[in-house]
Amino acid sequence: MKKTKLAKWMAQKHITIPEWLLAHYTELGLNEYELMALLHIQSFIDQGDDFLTPTQLSDRMTLNHEECTKVLSKLIRSQLLALEKKSDESGILYEAYSLEPLWMRIIELVDQKEYTASQVESVELEGKLY
Amino acid sequence: MKKTKLAKWMAQKHITIPEWLLAHYTELGLNEYELMALLHIQSFIDQGDDFLTPTQLSDRMTLNHEECTKVLSKLIRSQLLALEKKSDESGILYEAYSLEPLWMRIIELVDQKEYTASQVESVELEGKLY
Amino acid sequence: MKKTKLAKWMAQKHITIPEWLLAHYTELGLNEYELMALLHIQSFIDQGDDFLTPTQLSDRMTLNHEECTKVLSKLIRSQLLALEKKSDESGILYEAYSLEPLWMRIIELVDQKEYTASQVESVELEGKLY
Amino acid sequence: MKKTKLAKWMAQKHITIPEWLLAHYTELGLNEYELMALLHIQSFIDQGDDFLTPTQLSDRMTLNHEECTKVLSKLIRSQLLALEKKSDESGILYEAYSLEPLWMRIIELVDQKEYTASQVESVELEGKLY
Repeated sequence: MKKTKLAKWMAQKHITIPEWLLAHYTELGLNEYELMALLHIQSFIDQGDDFLTPTQLSDRMTLNHEECTKVLSKLIRSQLLALEKKSDESGILYEAYSLEPLWMRIIELVDQKEYTASQVESVELEGKLY
Repeated sequence: MKKTKLAKWMAQKHITIPEWLLAHYTELGLNEYELMALLHIQSFIDQGDDFLTPTQLSDRMTLNHEECTKVLSKLIRSQLLALEKKSDESGILYEAYSLEPLWMRIIELVDQKEYTASQVESVELEGKLY
Repeated sequence: MKKTKLAKWMAQKHITIPEWLLAHYTELGLNEYELMALLHIQSFIDQGDDFLTPTQLSDRMTLNHEECTKVLSKLIRSQLLALEKKSDESGILYEAYSLEPLWMRIIELVDQKEYTASQVESVELEGKLY
Repeated sequence: MKKTKLAKWMAQKHITIPEWLLAHYTELGLNEYELMALLHIQSFIDQGDDFLTPTQLSDRMTLNHEECTKVLSKLIRSQLLALEKKSDESGILYEAYSLEPLWMRIIELVDQKEYTASQVESVELEGKLY
């Protein structure tokens, strides 16, 4: 490969996923298609594009347009993805995806796990005491 | 959430994916299950564990043990994943997954795309000349 | 470059830094040497090594051994880095660096900024009212 | 911290640095100020802004305006950073930073290291033969 081309490749952006999300997405009720859809949306947002159509999603996935529409609807319905109405400087309304609901759910689940962990711990402690 | 717990969460590792891979995995013949399996393997390797069983993979995915075995076999067969025999300091043999074949294929595809791009360009140029 | 070598390079790990930290480290009282020292420590921790000597740090920085010792001491003294005593399975004690204090400080600063932002906002609002 | 604020924080972008760069920047002749300047530029580029003034850089660093100007000049002079002239759709010229020279130098250094490694290897082999 030519060095200039390679340098261009190396200069590309990366998307980052917390290890926790990779290890626990099924506990959020997500399957692989839905997680990948969220990652594609994050990638679009990271590049300054906070909206993508089912067709744009379908171009990057093995799912067709209709299946992509269903995945997006399910993510919104299960409150892991938000479709917000925003207005630009000229007052023109547009729709934008936000992943904040996903992060909210992760925060809640991580919080809840702590609780369970302390419960388990106290049960184990009791087990040791008797 | 308690700040100490939150701090622990923030200190976690992230897995990084090049934008290119996210945008073009279908061109590598990968579906969403297979890409996610590769990301799980990368996550294990990043944590110093270069092997995982179909059961460990199944614990993190919506696929069962048998389906995970099939995904891993297909990835190896289509030369995107390698299962290498290694030996540790004491000479004990063990198996380790390597994602280098995936990177090799990406390099080839990126290279090939350049070629096509210049072809297209020269065709366009010809179109303009006549 | 040979493709196999390149593939190995591409398969390497990345360290990830939140944009916030990059934009606001000076507000945490950090200079560039100290932030880089923290990033080197994070890199060691990510690779499963939660301790590094001033010499190991000095090998990667433009600072000498003595200057690295000073940087590490200052980071601990200003509570952005912790040196904890841990014990392994065999009960042997060892020292380990932890970046949790850094994350705690970031959480506090982000929290505090929100407060200031709402103050500013209400002041602006008042300004508009009169 | 409020969960909504926290979720916003978690949704932020990360900048990614290859481990190699973190471990070997001194071999590229970079000191900590210069590496941090390059990371700030990468952060701006990642956010769609391929130019920043010495003042913008100075706002994020412990260096003043004049020192930032010197750092930027040195990076360009030592061919790790490029300042390119581009034109937008309306034909208006603007300047843009590019980190491709940095990646080119890394590619060369990684390549060269391989060479040295094989040299060392063949010397060791000779040592064993006689």
